[in-house]
Amino acid sequence: MYSGRTSRLAKILAGLNAVAVISPSSDMFYLTGLRLMADERLTACIIRPDGPAEMILPALYSEQVARSAPRLRQLVWTDGENPYTVLAARLREMGLDTVLVDEHMWCGHLLALQSALPEAEWGSASIPVRQLRRVKDSMEIAELRRAAEIIDSAVMRTIYEVRPGMTERHLAEVLESNIVAGGGEGVSFPPLVGSGPNSALPHYQAGDRVIREGDPVVIDAGCVAGGYCSDTTRTVLVGREPEGYLDIYRIVLRAYQAALASVRPGVACREIDRVARGVIGDSGYGQHFIHRTGHGIGLDVHGEPFIVEGNGQILEVGMTFSIEPGIYLPGRFGARVEDIILVTETGGVSLNTSARELMRL
Amino acid sequence: MYSGRTSRLAKILAGLNAVAVISPSSDMFYLTGLRLMADERLTACIIRPDGPAEMILPALYSEQVARSAPRLRQLVWTDGENPYTVLAARLREMGLDTVLVDEHMWCGHLLALQSALPEAEWGSASIPVRQLRRVKDSMEIAELRRAAEIIDSAVMRTIYEVRPGMTERHLAEVLESNIVAGGGEGVSFPPLVGSGPNSALPHYQAGDRVIREGDPVVIDAGCVAGGYCSDTTRTVLVGREPEGYLDIYRIVLRAYQAALASVRPGVACREIDRVARGVIGDSGYGQHFIHRTGHGIGLDVHGEPFIVEGNGQILEVGMTFSIEPGIYLPGRFGARVEDIILVTETGGVSLNTSARELMRL
Repeated sequence: MYSGRTSRLAKILAGLNAVAVISPSSDMFYLTGLRLMADERLTACIIRPDGPAEMILPALYSEQVARSAPRLRQLVWTDGENPYTVLAARLREMGLDTVLVDEHMWCGHLLALQSALPEAEWGSASIPVRQLRRVKDSMEIAELRRAAEIIDSAVMRTIYEVRPGMTERHLAEVLESNIVAGGGEGVSFPPLVGSGPNSALPHYQAGDRVIREGDPVVIDAGCVAGGYCSDTTRTVLVGREPEGYLDIYRIVLRAYQAALASVRPGVACREIDRVARGVIGDSGYGQHFIHRTGHGIGLDVHGEPFIVEGNGQILEVGMTFSIEPGIYLPGRFGARVEDIILVTETGGVSLNTSARELMRL
Repeated sequence: MYSGRTSRLAKILAGLNAVAVISPSSDMFYLTGLRLMADERLTACIIRPDGPAEMILPALYSEQVARSAPRLRQLVWTDGENPYTVLAARLREMGLDTVLVDEHMWCGHLLALQSALPEAEWGSASIPVRQLRRVKDSMEIAELRRAAEIIDSAVMRTIYEVRPGMTERHLAEVLESNIVAGGGEGVSFPPLVGSGPNSALPHYQAGDRVIREGDPVVIDAGCVAGGYCSDTTRTVLVGREPEGYLDIYRIVLRAYQAALASVRPGVACREIDRVARGVIGDSGYGQHFIHRTGHGIGLDVHGEPFIVEGNGQILEVGMTFSIEPGIYLPGRFGARVEDIILVTETGGVSLNTSARELMRL
């Protein structure tokens, strides 16, 4: 599987006369199966149009990489050496003008490599890798579905445990425990738990606020399964809702449903955004929907295709992305509904299957 | 506190005729108190020699940043705009030749910014920020000590729970629970749990191997408290040790003790490495100590000063770093002892206080 992926990338690189340098990241995992952590020690997979993939890495990772990826040729550097000089020399031997680096590489590595190889042209390796990654194969879809099932169940179990008097942070900890208990490898991002007026901040992280009677509590969370991410948003009301809350929730849910119904192969991403934005705009809340409608998801929680105005990318069977319209009234409250959608021949299918309706304790 | 830090950076930038662009990272937290997550949306703090710091950020983070850092001027971009064009225009107005970016910024952002501002010189903002960060103030030392106390206690509690038949991964989960129960904000890196022959891989992560009678189990873990990291390594023997294990453990412990005793202000980092390496080399295991002796620690788990051959950096009061010598015999077993050391007027003091001796179940 991995050699098929690196070959497909090598073919794209041949057309660009370029070599790709991929640091520990989801791109590296996708291409090699290696799940390494990025750090200050230069470690990268080098993929070129002709010739096998190889790894540059510090001596201390050598045995571990040899066990996980025994067929990858290794270019090992030791603590006394300058790894950028070593890599620059190897890239010069390959005789290609352009070096593409993955977009998650730390700038410190790129700046040092640019100094060691000043004659090269630089660009993004993630652009061609994204071409490969944005359409998921059946194994990837199975993992995304499993990640969605685990988060659906963990969020529902967490919602049943919401009580007035708990802090948002405590609820986030309960959620994390439920994810691990349900078989998740961990969170795909720190859970967002926004209660009361904090629900009006779309990227607010769980804080010290105590949940009270009359609060909407918006929970936006995801987990990882087999390396693949989930991401969903559900809302629970603690007792009676604040005035006007049911109205905005219904509008958001309608926007979600309309956007989902508009998904099919051949449609541009911006169209899905326009449909969601149209429903909210027609209800008079257009200025309070302050983010894009969605983002692709896979090994990264955010990736292509982005469901946003201006994006003419065409949906294809096998793409997966969030639909997550929201309305945010500063200082009062906010609402959002979010699922991960798979594009199939016949339209969009949600990988999340838990109830989308507003729940009430 | 934060305005003092940005002013000190601005003074360094004046000497370089440069502006710094700092993405969500520990550098941003250190300079502004903002703990944002890096993502594909351009968000950065701009610091220049004269004039106040400002933030470029997408509209959806605007209110949240205004609440956390009300005095930071905001340059807000919306989903339709190209944020790199917006930032390039602002940097051009400032009229400085050199743009320094933090070393953790994603390359995707730097490559796009280099395209939008091709006339600029580029460099690392982390180099001057590290000058500020490498000596810790008393508040930072208090947080590092608290992080060390939490991990000491969590590792000890975990060691008492080791039983033959458990997998390494299960033990890592127990450890993570103990960290959260002890007041940690989470792990500073995924815990390393290497049992039996896996203990010979210094960066092996916990896997599916089942812990057995006769295994050494090396646990290398850290947590976060107030944003600051801890990092320690302890070893437990399950029953009788493999032949030769006690010998290598004693050598490693002696190397640790000798290195700690050599710490004092004015000594070069490479000297500490030489002392540790000398003890291990004299015992005939020099080729099996395959990594540097240590790394600085603070808001990042790895940073300056690096305790490594070739590093002439001079230790100063208030620096904090690991001392972590090890011996690794491939296919057999390995041993490492690790603590975080604070440089004081009178020498090195370990912030970790749990027993360093080999424990036995």
